[in-house]
Order: sequence, then C-alpha cells, then structure tokens
Amino acid sequence: MKRTHTCGELRRENANQTVTLSGWVNSCRDLGGLTFIDLRDREGVTQVVINPESVSEEIAKLASTIRDEFVLTVIGKVIARPDNMVNKNMATGAIELEVIDVVIDNRSKPMPFHLNDPNVNEDLRLKYRYLDIRGSQTNENLRIRHQITMMVRNSLSDQGFIEVETPILSKSTPEGARDYLVPSRVHPNNFYALPQAPQQYKQLLMVGGIERYFQIAKCFRDEDLRADRQPEFTQIDIEASFVDQEDLYSIIEKMLYDIMLKVKGLEISLPFPRMTHAEAMDRFGSDKPDTRFGMEFVNLADVLANCEFKVFSGALSTGGQVKCINAKGLAKSSSRKIIDQWTDFVKQFGAKGLAWIKIEEDGNVKSPIAKFLSEDELNGVISAASAEAGDVILVVADKASIVADALGRLRLEIAENNDMIPADVYNFLWCVDFPLLDHDEETDTWHAVHHPFTSPYPEDIEKMDTDPANVRARAYDVILNGCELGGGSIRIHQPEMQEKMFKALGITDEEIQEKFGHIVDALSFGAPPHGGIALGLDRLVMLLTGADSIREVIAFPKTNKAACLMTESPSGVDAEQLEELHLALVKLEEK
Amino acid sequence: MKRTHTCGELRRENANQTVTLSGWVNSCRDLGGLTFIDLRDREGVTQVVINPESVSEEIAKLASTIRDEFVLTVIGKVIARPDNMVNKNMATGAIELEVIDVVIDNRSKPMPFHLNDPNVNEDLRLKYRYLDIRGSQTNENLRIRHQITMMVRNSLSDQGFIEVETPILSKSTPEGARDYLVPSRVHPNNFYALPQAPQQYKQLLMVGGIERYFQIAKCFRDEDLRADRQPEFTQIDIEASFVDQEDLYSIIEKMLYDIMLKVKGLEISLPFPRMTHAEAMDRFGSDKPDTRFGMEFVNLADVLANCEFKVFSGALSTGGQVKCINAKGLAKSSSRKIIDQWTDFVKQFGAKGLAWIKIEEDGNVKSPIAKFLSEDELNGVISAASAEAGDVILVVADKASIVADALGRLRLEIAENNDMIPADVYNFLWCVDFPLLDHDEETDTWHAVHHPFTSPYPEDIEKMDTDPANVRARAYDVILNGCELGGGSIRIHQPEMQEKMFKALGITDEEIQEKFGHIVDALSFGAPPHGGIALGLDRLVMLLTGADSIREVIAFPKTNKAACLMTESPSGVDAEQLEELHLALVKLEEK
Repeated sequence: MKRTHTCGELRRENANQTVTLSGWVNSCRDLGGLTFIDLRDREGVTQVVINPESVSEEIAKLASTIRDEFVLTVIGKVIARPDNMVNKNMATGAIELEVIDVVIDNRSKPMPFHLNDPNVNEDLRLKYRYLDIRGSQTNENLRIRHQITMMVRNSLSDQGFIEVETPILSKSTPEGARDYLVPSRVHPNNFYALPQAPQQYKQLLMVGGIERYFQIAKCFRDEDLRADRQPEFTQIDIEASFVDQEDLYSIIEKMLYDIMLKVKGLEISLPFPRMTHAEAMDRFGSDKPDTRFGMEFVNLADVLANCEFKVFSGALSTGGQVKCINAKGLAKSSSRKIIDQWTDFVKQFGAKGLAWIKIEEDGNVKSPIAKFLSEDELNGVISAASAEAGDVILVVADKASIVADALGRLRLEIAENNDMIPADVYNFLWCVDFPLLDHDEETDTWHAVHHPFTSPYPEDIEKMDTDPANVRARAYDVILNGCELGGGSIRIHQPEMQEKMFKALGITDEEIQEKFGHIVDALSFGAPPHGGIALGLDRLVMLLTGADSIREVIAFPKTNKAACLMTESPSGVDAEQLEELHLALVKLEEK
Repeated sequence: MKRTHTCGELRRENANQTVTLSGWVNSCRDLGGLTFIDLRDREGVTQVVINPESVSEEIAKLASTIRDEFVLTVIGKVIARPDNMVNKNMATGAIELEVIDVVIDNRSKPMPFHLNDPNVNEDLRLKYRYLDIRGSQTNENLRIRHQITMMVRNSLSDQGFIEVETPILSKSTPEGARDYLVPSRVHPNNFYALPQAPQQYKQLLMVGGIERYFQIAKCFRDEDLRADRQPEFTQIDIEASFVDQEDLYSIIEKMLYDIMLKVKGLEISLPFPRMTHAEAMDRFGSDKPDTRFGMEFVNLADVLANCEFKVFSGALSTGGQVKCINAKGLAKSSSRKIIDQWTDFVKQFGAKGLAWIKIEEDGNVKSPIAKFLSEDELNGVISAASAEAGDVILVVADKASIVADALGRLRLEIAENNDMIPADVYNFLWCVDFPLLDHDEETDTWHAVHHPFTSPYPEDIEKMDTDPANVRARAYDVILNGCELGGGSIRIHQPEMQEKMFKALGITDEEIQEKFGHIVDALSFGAPPHGGIALGLDRLVMLLTGADSIREVIAFPKTNKAACLMTESPSGVDAEQLEELHLALVKLEEK
C-alpha cells in the first residue's frame, strides 16, 4: 500500500477513482456512526470518511481506535461533493474519500501541545521541536528557507560564481567575537576554532584565482546571546576578483530581485537607492535607515544659531547638535504620560532630555521650552520641521552620537507604536562610504569599523596618518526596512597597504606574523584586486517570512542560553574522552 | 580600467576591437625587443604583446619589470593572426592583443613551486594551498565539485526534497567513531559535539512531517586517519517518508543520472543492477563489487567434495570454502616471483597460502598441487574456472570471511596491475539485503551492521531472537566501480520495534533513555514510515574528476595528521580562553 496522491491533490476530476493516501490524523470525529478524519500530509488535508457498514468489521474496529496524529494509509474511492457541500476553505474541499481499507502505520501518544496553537510556551516547543516543525508555520518557514537558498545558489551560479566549502575546523582568529574552540586529540594541548566567518579563506580563494566564490556558510560566535542571536548562524558569503563596488551592488541586487520575485511575487525596482553613511546618520541617525516612513531628522543648528537657551546653545557651542523629528498628527494623542515615556526612552540612549513643541488642532503652540526661545526661533523650528496643526516636534540636543542614537530610536519607536510603517513594503538600500577607522576613547586606539582587510578610498589613504577619522572605507551595507541584511567591502590586495593598515590599528609586526602571517604572505604572491559581501541568511528568511525571531526559521535552534532543549545539549562527557584530549575540567567551586 | 572580456574569450571575430583584460602573467618572454605575455584568468589564456615602440616610454619601462604571476590589467587592440600562425592549442590562438596601456595590479614574489608541476611535494602544496588552487587541476576540481553539488540540489529539489540545515553544535552520540567536542563556556564543564552525521536530526525531521529532506552536510570524525580520510567531510544526506527501498533507488538513480550526463556527458542506463549482499560476497568477496571486469569467484566445493588434499578438505569439512579466480592470459607473465608476491599479498588478509594451476600456452598444466588432486578433480577445477591455455587459476581455502577478503583483494590487485580495468566505464550497482546484525566474537555481543535505527525485513523479525545472524536488514549501498558511494536503509519507525532492536544490541533501558531518549520519544508521537541514504560527496567528486585522493577535491584539506599546514591549525590558545571555558590542559609529561 503506497500512496498514489498527496493529501493536497484530489479534485472533482478525480471522482470515482480509487486512490491511496498517507498522512497524519489532523482531526477525527464520530458523527452518527460515521468516522470523519481530516488526513494531513505536507501538501494539504483531505477529508476521509469511514462508514462501518461499507468496510469489514475488522477495519471498523480498527477505525474506532484512531486518534489525533496517528499515521494512516487509506485506500478509498474519491466522492465528488454536491455543489452546496463544497468546503471552499480546503483545496480538496470539492471531494471526500470513502474508505475501503485502512492501515495504522503508527500510533501517537497524546500531544504535549496542540499543533499550531500560537500560545504555546517556546521552551515546550523547543523541547518537542519535531512536533513544532509538524505545525504548519514552522514547516512553511523551512520550505521558504529552502526556496530562498535555492534562489541564491542558482542566481549566483548563473552569474559565474562557484560554491566552495571552507573548513569548519579552522584556526582561532584574533579579531571579533569569542571563538568556539575544538580540542585536538592528535595534537594535544592544541585547538581548532570554529569560524566566525570564512573571511580569510575567501580572500585566499581569490589569491587562488577562483575569481567568483560564494558559500552558504555556517558561522559561529560564542557570545553572551542577545535577544535574537544564535551561537551558529548561516551567511551568504560572496567574494569576487577584478570588481569594484558597482559590480558587487549589481550582483546582490540581481540576486535579491530573483528572490523577491520568487518568494514574494514582487518586482523590486533596481538599482537600490544609495546613501552615504554620513547622510544616513544625518537624516535618520542610523547606518541602517528605515525609509518606509518619513519623520526624518531636521537639523536646527541654523535656526538656533543665536539661541540663548542653554541646553541648545551649550550643545551647539561644544560641537554637538540640536535636531528634531516631527511626529505628524500625534499632538492629540501625545499626552503628558506618553511624552514622559518618550523622554524616559531617549534617556536610555544617553540623552539628557527630550524637548517638545505641540501644535494643537486649533493652531496653538504649546511647549515647555517656548519661553526660552524667541518668536523667530520658535517659528523657525516649526517651519524647519514643516509642522502643522496636530503635529508634535521632538528635539534632542547633545553630542552627535547621542542625538543620532536617541532620536533615531525614538523615531522607530513612535512609528511602530502608531502604525506609521506600511505593510508589505520592502525598501532596500545601500549604505556606503563607511568610515575606515573608529577611535576608542578609552584606550586611545583606532579600530577597523568593518575589518582590517577593508580598503580605504585611494584618495583618502594619505589621511590615514594625519586625519584617520575622515578616511572613508570602500565598505557598504545592504539594508532592508531598517535591518542590516549584510555588509562588505573592497579588500586591500597589496601587501604594503595591508601592513599600513595593521600599523594604523596598532598591531605589532610580531602579532601580524603570528596571527595574519599566511594572509600577508598570500597577498605577496599576486593577489588580484577583490571584494565581497556577506548577508545574514537567517535574518533574510525571517524578514521574508514575517517571523518574529530567527529561531522561527532555523530547524533546530538553540535557546538564548545556547542550549538545545530537545537533545539536552551541551552535556557532560566521559572521563576517558577528556583524558584522550589531555584536558581537565576546572570545577566551578574551585574558582 | 575594468575588464571587458575574459582571457578565454577573444576570437578572430573580435579583430580590431579595443578590449581590456585582467589576469595573471602565466609566462613572460622578451623576444627581439617585444615582450610576449601569456595572460591567464579563470577562463583561459590570451597572448599579449608589448611593443616598446608603440607604447609610452613609461609603459615600456613598466613592462620590463613584469614577472611571472604578476597581476595585470591591459588595454589593447585585438590582432587577428595569419592562418599559418594560429595556435591551435589555445582557444584564443587565432588572435593576440597588442598592448596600448598596462597597469600592474599587484606584484608577486617568486613562486615557491611551479604551478601545475605534477611532482611538487604535497606538504609544500598544502602550505601554499592558495597557489595550488591557482593551478589548473585543483581549480578545475573545485569547479566540477560546484557543478556536482548544484546538480544534486536541483535534482533533489525537483523531486520535492527541501534542504534543511541541521546543527553543527550538536550532542555527543554514543555510536560510531570518536566525536570532536566543543566546550561550552555558558554551561561550564559541558560540551557540544560536532555531528558524525545528521542521522538523528533527519529522522526527527521526518517525525516533523518534512517528508522529503536533503542536506549537503558537513560531518566530523576524530579518527586516527587512514590513507584517504579527512576529519571533516561532506555528505549528501537524504531522508524521505512513506517510501520503500524502490522509491529511494529511483530517487538516487535519477540524481546520479543527471550528474553523469552533466559532468561526464554520459547517459548511464537505469535502473542500476541489484545484487544481494550474499551474492556479492559469493561472486566477488566484497560488498562493493567492481563489475568493470570479470575474474569472478568460482566455488570449488562441489568439484572438491571428496578431495583428499588436506588443505582443501580441511577447509570444507570445518564449514569453510575453497574458491578460485581465473587470471585470464596471465600464465606466461606470472613468474615464480609474481606468484610469490600474490601469495604474500593474500597472507596480509589472513590466508594461509595461495594455490595455483597454470595452463601453459601449449596446454600443459603446471601446478604444485596437481599431485594432491585426482585427474577428475584437476580437470574439474579447470573446467569450473573456464580456464584455457594461457590462464592461471588461483585458489584460496579458508573460512569464508578470509576467502572473501583475500581472494577479493587479489582479484582487484591483479586487475589493476594488468590493465584489466577498462577506462571511462562507470558501473553503478545496488548492493542490497545486508545482514542486520553482526556478531562480535570477542565480546559475544551483536552489533548493528548499518546502525541501530535500521529496520529488519518484517518476515525476518521473528528470527531476531532465534537466529540473529540471518536477519536481513532493509539496507542498501550504492556502488560505483567498486567504491561505496553511499548507503542507507529503511528505518524503524515504531517505538516497540526500536526497543526490540536496542535490546538485541544489549543496550540497557537506562542507556536508551540517556542516549536515545528524544528519538524513542519522537517515534511515539506518530513517526511516519521513512528511510534514507547518505552519499560521500568528496568521494563522488574524486571518482568523477579522476583525482587520486579526496584531498584533491577539497579546497582546504587537512593532512593525515589532521593539521592545516597553511594556517598552522590546530594551535595553542590563550590562558584566558581556557579559563573562560573552565578547562585546564593536561601536559603530556604529566601523564
């Protein structure tokens, strides 16, 4: 008995055929002596009817033992339903199956939770992840993930890229997050590391003349997990030779176009808009601006140039900023309580306070700071913010980084809470020309904003010694709806430039040799000009499925404590295993 | 200056066009004042000519500094060569490029070895793997690997399979080889393990209703590496629900058909032949028979039933075998020395000796055992072996396992050394009906031949208690030219049967709960009938590229000592890293 059709396949045209279906009992009801079963497989649900009078006594008896989630194979005759009995909510609603024979392939204990119940505790779902996957949403998420990865592979392969697998048993990298280590038994007291990204390997593949590489690559970071991180995650990793930024933009745009068309049925417009890092920070206070709605920053420096209000003049005179957003139409709903909440909100990001100016429906201006501003200044702010009756202007004055962060996040918070973000809009953009170096005030050292292999603009190289803060990197991020989908850069391909970069980062010759020796070596054997990008696959799938978390689009995710509740991993190991690895445990109490 | 064409693209039709190429200097010669450069990229080689009289003085000077493996971008005019000057060995041999401008994108130190030199020491190649990849053979191997994985994915996706990523940070499994462990920092003294295969996850996906799963999956085994193993390797991992063996055979056959057509241009014939494990052992002494040539085993039990020669009669009377192969046409070349070598060869595999019967060109029979056999027996052996003038019959008498191993390997050894294996023949076959259980004489316990989740034939289940050696598994291997490409089985899907199997393997209830608890649990929640297979991708690519070793088809392989010579991994780590992991090293001298 082998299935002839799936449970999503039968239509009125199949009437009177004898078919075999296999699947799970989605529901089972006894009505007037007849047993009605909704039989479910991956493709759909078909209603199956067992009439005890038209099957053998044995089968009738068996049918009475059937419960939810039993696995059945049924042979039956397809019966067309009368027009007025068609179930329009089911693809197979025009027919039902009159059972001739049934085999119970497997029984099931009662479920620990109801499949598809949206209110199940996540820990319980993760413990029984195999049942959670049986529910329609997780199953569908994994199918869409497969579709997306197939599109990525086919699009890149069509564009001349080849997928190359790089090692998982890799070498500990000095940059970035904490590595997961793997002790070596054959080389006692030595360790492999799981790769945080295949960055060095992909550059070495360029030195190896592969020219166009990609990989859907597993990456690992041993972090104290924030809300939506996983210890292992997947990235779409890309590198190409003899290319500049424009080539990479168009490769990625083509790939994302293909994906959006296939997965969402949407033709997105190409090329994506570009925004420099400086502009993004200026207009949105973020290097991943969400452009699905307005409420952009308005710089009040000119309007308030001569302002006598200390909060503003103080910020401006010490090199800081005074900026506002206009929360359109929210004057009425922004009660004292709401404004207090917003004020507390911006304080989390370092702002000392939030000034506001309401233009009430009748045109009256209400603001605790009105008394500190001249009429010209007040009108200037209102005019600069294009504020009208019903709007509320929110002002932050502080050093630039705090204004950006506080006001940028407030903008998102207000938009989300007031349904200002249109649904089903997918705004892609490139954020470009990131700074190359970032100053760490605490240690007075310079860090690579992207990574130490990122190339500066040739015309900015001379500033590396004199004005490092203003050296622009040939680095770019691709943004979707305010989320960073990925980022990359044109790399340094000449050994002299790479050494200059390491010097700028304060890395000693000895460290260079120990940590990056093979990379510097490789650059000196005819490395071609090259660049690349990496996109977070989990996040892309999450955004395109509308899932709340990347855990929803990963088959067997870990918790925020990096544990698998299903297999109870990580777990203890035998003393012999440790002995073979020349390792001893340091017990917690010994510390 | 960005390339307009690849180095493999220009033809006579392009004559007089101005084009830009980028690539590596494959060779550089100065002839009569002209500089001739073979410029190479991934797609091919183009001859480039720099005439100092037709370029600026600056460029002429630059040209004189060019050396092998420099990276250049050249602008030039395509010149058609006269018919009698066409280089037929190069796809671009009908043209050359007359240089207008050159940029040296990067210089190169002298190479540590000559690209494409077949005699370079492998350790040196692995240290500079990025240069080894630049050589044409490794580059081509990686391209073919990509083609094969794309074919696998597209074929399986077309057949309704979805690729699901299973975790790399996994749980230590009690069966099989040694695990690689990953210490957890967040859960001190606990460990993840890298998966030896996604076996349990793929079965759980079936319980989850995925129905058709595949994955090109990284697997890990911490073994003392034999000749051609790697600590990490890649398998094509497949599992499907509501299927039997026949369904899986046809899925795999279709996939391999697609690959052979695309990669080798060959239409292989389907379905593949099937051979039971018993027949394969009987005819070839191997469960992975190489059927590209004959020399099959001939069982001499009947012919020698009453033989008085102790070596033969002793083997037969104690339940052993007497079998021979006929090395056709080798009577003349099989000198005493050769026969001694063969004898030594079979002794490695436990045989006590090798009997031989030569039929010389003139029909004379020469054999040291002739005197122990009656004339009927001698003629009987010759006739059974279908031996003619010029052949040599080689006989092994021993217990069945030794006869199989010794004579089976001798068969391969002789065929390889005497060019008996036809080139470009791809013989696929299914070896089926493996035994379920294998008896370990030392410990007097039974082991799973495949793994403990493999289903027995229903009709053999009752023998599990009474005659375990003769229970057949629903297990199968796919063989190509005597190599095992992969193997799989129909799994146990009912919890009662799984427990029966664990009992047969002597696994206690406590161990079941601890090690397999989540699997047994999962089976009890409506697991569908399912089965699967896993194929070694590295080996498949090796066979289809004709490479000598899987290291040749892996971008960054490890040595037989599990080390990466390029990155010098594994390596020592900082004391702080170990402290965070609550681990201490046990120094070698302390042991």
